[in-house]
Order: sequence, then C-alpha cells, then structure tokens
Amino acid sequence: MITKLENGSVTSPQGFQGGAAACNVKGVEKDDGKLDVSIVLSDSDCTAAGTFTTSQFVAPPVTIDQETLAKNNSTIRGVITNSGNANAATGEIGLKNARRMQEVGATCSNLNSDQFLVMSTGVIGVQLPMEKIEKGIVEALDDCGHTDTHGLRASKGIMTTDTFVKMSAVEVQLSGGPVRIGGMSKGAGMIHPNMATMLGVVTTDAAIAPDLIKQMMKNAADVSFNRISVDGDTSTNDTVLLLANGASGIEINPSNQEDFALFKQALIQVCTELAQLIVRDGEGATKFAEIVVSGAKSKAEAHQVANTIATSPLVKTALAGSDANWGRVMAAAGRAGVSFDQYATTLKIGNDGENWLALTESGLPADYAEADAAAIFAETDIHIWLDLAQGDAAETVWTCDMTHGYITINADYRT
Amino acid sequence: MITKLENGSVTSPQGFQGGAAACNVKGVEKDDGKLDVSIVLSDSDCTAAGTFTTSQFVAPPVTIDQETLAKNNSTIRGVITNSGNANAATGEIGLKNARRMQEVGATCSNLNSDQFLVMSTGVIGVQLPMEKIEKGIVEALDDCGHTDTHGLRASKGIMTTDTFVKMSAVEVQLSGGPVRIGGMSKGAGMIHPNMATMLGVVTTDAAIAPDLIKQMMKNAADVSFNRISVDGDTSTNDTVLLLANGASGIEINPSNQEDFALFKQALIQVCTELAQLIVRDGEGATKFAEIVVSGAKSKAEAHQVANTIATSPLVKTALAGSDANWGRVMAAAGRAGVSFDQYATTLKIGNDGENWLALTESGLPADYAEADAAAIFAETDIHIWLDLAQGDAAETVWTCDMTHGYITINADYRT
Repeated sequence: MITKLENGSVTSPQGFQGGAAACNVKGVEKDDGKLDVSIVLSDSDCTAAGTFTTSQFVAPPVTIDQETLAKNNSTIRGVITNSGNANAATGEIGLKNARRMQEVGATCSNLNSDQFLVMSTGVIGVQLPMEKIEKGIVEALDDCGHTDTHGLRASKGIMTTDTFVKMSAVEVQLSGGPVRIGGMSKGAGMIHPNMATMLGVVTTDAAIAPDLIKQMMKNAADVSFNRISVDGDTSTNDTVLLLANGASGIEINPSNQEDFALFKQALIQVCTELAQLIVRDGEGATKFAEIVVSGAKSKAEAHQVANTIATSPLVKTALAGSDANWGRVMAAAGRAGVSFDQYATTLKIGNDGENWLALTESGLPADYAEADAAAIFAETDIHIWLDLAQGDAAETVWTCDMTHGYITINADYRT
Repeated sequence: MITKLENGSVTSPQGFQGGAAACNVKGVEKDDGKLDVSIVLSDSDCTAAGTFTTSQFVAPPVTIDQETLAKNNSTIRGVITNSGNANAATGEIGLKNARRMQEVGATCSNLNSDQFLVMSTGVIGVQLPMEKIEKGIVEALDDCGHTDTHGLRASKGIMTTDTFVKMSAVEVQLSGGPVRIGGMSKGAGMIHPNMATMLGVVTTDAAIAPDLIKQMMKNAADVSFNRISVDGDTSTNDTVLLLANGASGIEINPSNQEDFALFKQALIQVCTELAQLIVRDGEGATKFAEIVVSGAKSKAEAHQVANTIATSPLVKTALAGSDANWGRVMAAAGRAGVSFDQYATTLKIGNDGENWLALTESGLPADYAEADAAAIFAETDIHIWLDLAQGDAAETVWTCDMTHGYITINADYRT
C-alpha cells in the first residue's frame, strides 16, 4: 500500500534534514530575502544516482556531479543547491566554484568533498558570487533539521520563476515494514523531455545497493521527468538526484518481486507528481494536458508523435484559447516524422482519462456537438488521445498551454 | 544580370494571366468581398513541377496535384486556388471536390482536367462549398488578364491570415535574350521547413524540359521555402508549383553552363523573396531573423542546429523582447541532437550579415558592451551566427519572433 504524506518532502524519510539560507545570489538591488541556498543532508551515508541534461552545453555543476558519482555513489551525504545563478557557460572558473561548494559543505560538516553533490539554477554566463554562496552554505547547514518545515525551506531555496513550491512524499508498506520516499523539484520555463531547467532531489530511507540505484533512478525518470514539456527547450543544468540512506533498516531487493515492484511504483508516483507540478507551474500556464498516443508501431514512435503534439505552439495556443481544434493536433502528429495511415487514426478528448469524446474517426471529423468539445477544453485538465491503429505501443506526455503570460515572462526576463 | 521587376508577380513572364473572384468560401455572415478564388493561367502548355507537404496528413488537393503531375507535367495550363477552406481531412468527398475544381476549370477553357493543378488553404475538416467554388472558378477565369493588376488580384485571392500580399518577379538576361520569372506566395502561421500552410506559384516564360523542371523546383525550394520557420508547425496543404511556358522562345539548357547557373540563381532569388515575405508576415511577427550555423560536420547537422534555434520559443520570445540572450541560443543549439564541443563555439550577432558583435567566444561570454548587443536586437532585422568549429558545413534559416500577437491570433482563431 502507498500512502501519500501531506506536506511531505525530502525530509519525510527518516534521517534526512533540510535547510536553507537567503544570501541574495542574484544580487538584486533591494534584497528580497528570497531563500537561495538549499541543503538536503542525510545523517548517514547514502547510495546515490543522478539523471542529467543531454544538452551539448553542460554547466559545471552537472560535470562535477557526474564526476563525483562516477567515483563515489555509496557514501553521499548531501546536496547543496543555489538558485539565482546557474553557474553555466562559466568554464574553468565555474568548475572550480562548483568544487568549492562541495568543499565548503564538507568542511562545515566534517565530511569529504566527494560526499556532496551540487546543483545551480538561474542566469547563465555569470560567475557565482562565491563569498555569498559560501556564507549561504554555512547558514543553510546551520538551519538544517528533520521537520516538514525544514523540508519546505529546502524546497523553497531551489525555486526561481516557480510560483509555488513543489514537494511530494509517500509511505510504502513493504513486507518488512514501512519505508518512505520524499522529494522536491523546481521548473517553470524551458522544461522538456530529456531534462530541462529542472532540478529535483528524491530521498528515501530504504536501502538500495549502489549497483541498483542508478537503474532505478533512470527507470523512474524515464516515465516522469522525461515525459513533460513546457516549451520544448531544455537547459544546461538539468539534474534529478536520488539518495537512499537505509535508515528504515529495509533493503530493496529485486529477489522479493512484490516489494520491489511496489517500491518502484511508489518511486514513480513521487517522481511523476514532482514532474507534473513542474508542468502545472509552466511559465504562464493555465491548463494541464495529458497527451496519449496509442496504436503506434513502437514506444519510440508513440513518444515522438506525443512529444510533437505536446510541443506544437499551435496546439498549445489552442489549449490556451479553449479551442478543441483537432486540425492542429492532426497537423502536429502528421509532421512528427512517423509513418502512419491518416485514415486509420482516431482522436478523442476528455477531462478524466476515462470518459472520451471522439473528434475524428478514420481520419475524418466525427459526429459530435461543438459545445461538448468546447466544454471539455474549457476545463483546466485536458486529456488528448490519438490512436494511430498501426500497432500496440503507447506513450503519455504531459504539457501545458502557451499563453500571453508565457510571452510576457520570456520577452521581458532579463530587461 | 538579374533585374527586379517592381510590382511584378505571376503575370510578369510572357503569356501568363492572373484572375480572381470573391465568392465567400468561408461563409462569413457579412460577406466582406475578400477575393478567395485565384487563377494563374498560361496561354500555352507548360512543363510543371511541385514541392509538397511531408505531413502524414495530406489534403486531397495535394494528392490530386501529385497524381496529375505524375501523369502529365508537360501540358499544364493553369493553377486554381481557393482560400477560406483547406479541403483537408475531407476524405473521398474531398478528393472528388478537388477533381471537380480541375473539371470546372477545364470545361470553361476547353482544356482537359489534367491540365489544371489545384490548391486550397483555410479551415480543416469542412467540405468545400462547391456551388460557390464552381461559380468562383467561372468568374475568376472571366477575370483573367496579363497585366500587373491581374497578377495582384491572383495573389490576393490566395491570402488567408496574411496581412500583406506576397509577390516577386525578375528579368534575367541570358545569352539568347531576356527571360522572366514571377511568383506569388501566402503563409502566415504554421510555417516550417519541409513546407507548411504555405502556397506558392512560380511562373517563367523560359522553356524548361519536363525531365529537368522537377529537379530545378526541388533545388530552389530546398534553399528558400524549406529554410523558413514561423512556429515549427507544418500543414496538410503545403504546395509550391513551378510552371514554364517557354513563351520567351529561350530554353534553359544545362549544357550552357553560364546561362543555366544564372537562371537557377534568379529562380532561387524569386523563391527566397517569396519565402522571406512569408516569415516577415508570420502571425504576430515584429522581427525577422537570419540564423546561420557554420563549422558543422555536415550540412544536415548545420541545418538541424539552425532549425532548433529558429523554432525555440525561448529564442523567439527573446527576439520579441529585444533581449540579446545568448544563453537561450546556446541552450537551443545544445539540445539539437548534434554533437560538438561547447568550448569551441562562437556566437555573433549583427544586423546586416557583414558587421558582427561576438557575444561568446570559446563557449564563454565575450567582452562586449550590453548596450551594443541591445542596440542590435532592437532592430527589425537580426542576424545570429553560431560557429561550431567542428567542420566546414554551414546552413541558413529564417525565422521571426514570437509575440503577444501570435498568441492572440492563435488562441482565438476559431472562436
């Protein structure tokens, strides 16, 4: 059984602390006191794994985490994140500063540098203000504690243009007893499959072997963080980290198939909620859409078509305008680079994933009332289901609408 | 020598007529008298070729043109276009109606059905109002004439959300005498490489052999119509047609290399102007951007990176906001799926393709004044040049900015 924990986050699993500090990383003239250094700290060593941006432009903190995890993924103790500055396009100095963040964390907590992972998010091409950052790390470590409030503070510390804090936690009853999984994420603009300006930290008090945790992170990210799209752009800093400290005394073992499946399901549930919250908080977003493509020849083709629909500006503006414009969905599907028979396709829409209204059948307009379609598109949560009738593969992606708010935020971001 | 002809269009080459009629295809309550049936007619037989949408959803007029040209590309006499209704997602009835458009044209002019090509643009999923269309074809044929005004009327008849008419014509001095090339296009939203809701007709009074014209059309379209992007979406109806009637008495012959190269250049010039006019009239567009990617390992990779930059909503909103945000250009390039060394890249911007300001060098911010970058981005025409330093291949694409106007047009199109 999986039970959702109200107000839960990275500190919900046993032995995890959270903390944050406000040090004006962004350097705004009138310091607004925004929390911009965030710490997740485990009382004991963790196995750990990460999923990272696939961009050719990789920010130094991503490089440092990848190097660190390659050497040590069994005695990780914490994650240090700053918002307000992405430490991206910063070259050798950026690498040195990311390493310095590890060192400061290690020195304050009597640990080694390679026991800390680091993340940064914010403006690109500006060196980190290290004096502030170092002071922030010291203060955030001082701030650390095990309560929900500490988890909330850590979650707030990673936000940038996010309009609400993103947290999720569950408790899972396994045969040996309960374990917990908690997490936090941040997103807003530039969100896309294969990771985006998306940061996430997921913690669990289950024990997961070092040779198992990487695959578990990847499997969970593939069906959650890698299934969302806000504007098709991805960033230089995308990182989702999973830390397992084993404080529950229960080890996740693939040989216990039932427990293993249940834990994987719970991990996916937390990652999916964290990912969907990012979409719901997409820059200027007013709608949340689930795009399902079924009947494809392969999962890759289903994903490609779903993703093309999800990133189409014409589909996203139709969502914004509450206009059930199936022509735009068909046009996007048609240019996805996947071969299918247009006169075999069916397009349906709905609000709950259970009740559907067919807009087209056999590639031609179905017999439906325009008012019924408009009523579905007027809701906040919209499901779009395209069946290609070519095979058995299906994929789901989540996206949001594209509004005047998106233009306002992104046409005026730096000015 | 290539001379641009003021106010020239499809009727500038000898022996071509244009005409149009207003028949309220769209069925708006208060008939606004918009010209919505357009004819291009040649006094004598033409060789012809077309470039068509690559979408899996293909509208009936595209299918009919492909079938017609496969059977007959040497005695084409005209192109009949209606705006206001795309005759797309209309199935067997749509095919029958597209054929009927050919028949009506043929009957009125004592020709065969397979001597006419047809195009449609407008709303999807609604059958053509054939009574109006047939009346419109008769009236538009009656309206036909050889003057610039007739060319202008034909050009107006294909417009939909376009805010200005798109025409271009040149005269080329070949060794045997002058020949002319003229054309018209329509576009606005949904414009993307590999064709979009883009229609175009190009005419020439040069003679081009039937086995040569297809390749000439493809070569010209590849570096013009297939190099533009408004919002990354493509349509079901995209068609560009080339008709050569030989009325100048001069044949384009590959064995005369100098003439052949000059004619190809002139054809590309007309197609490029028609394509660029589409971008300049992109829905809500206020800026025109030329994206050059050089130093790629192949032209395909250069094109892929340039195209990813051109379709990035974050780049396009930065253009709208006059924000020289190189981080967004790098982020788009980084996720294009092309491998390169971020620390070898150089990014420059300018307004004329000759004078450049470096924003990054070796992947790091260059030493420039923010005010200089802002001044470049404040202009209407912006050039962005990314060098990957991996090879010798380069490609150019053209795009526009993404503004509140785009959202307004597309969130409210049908309502």
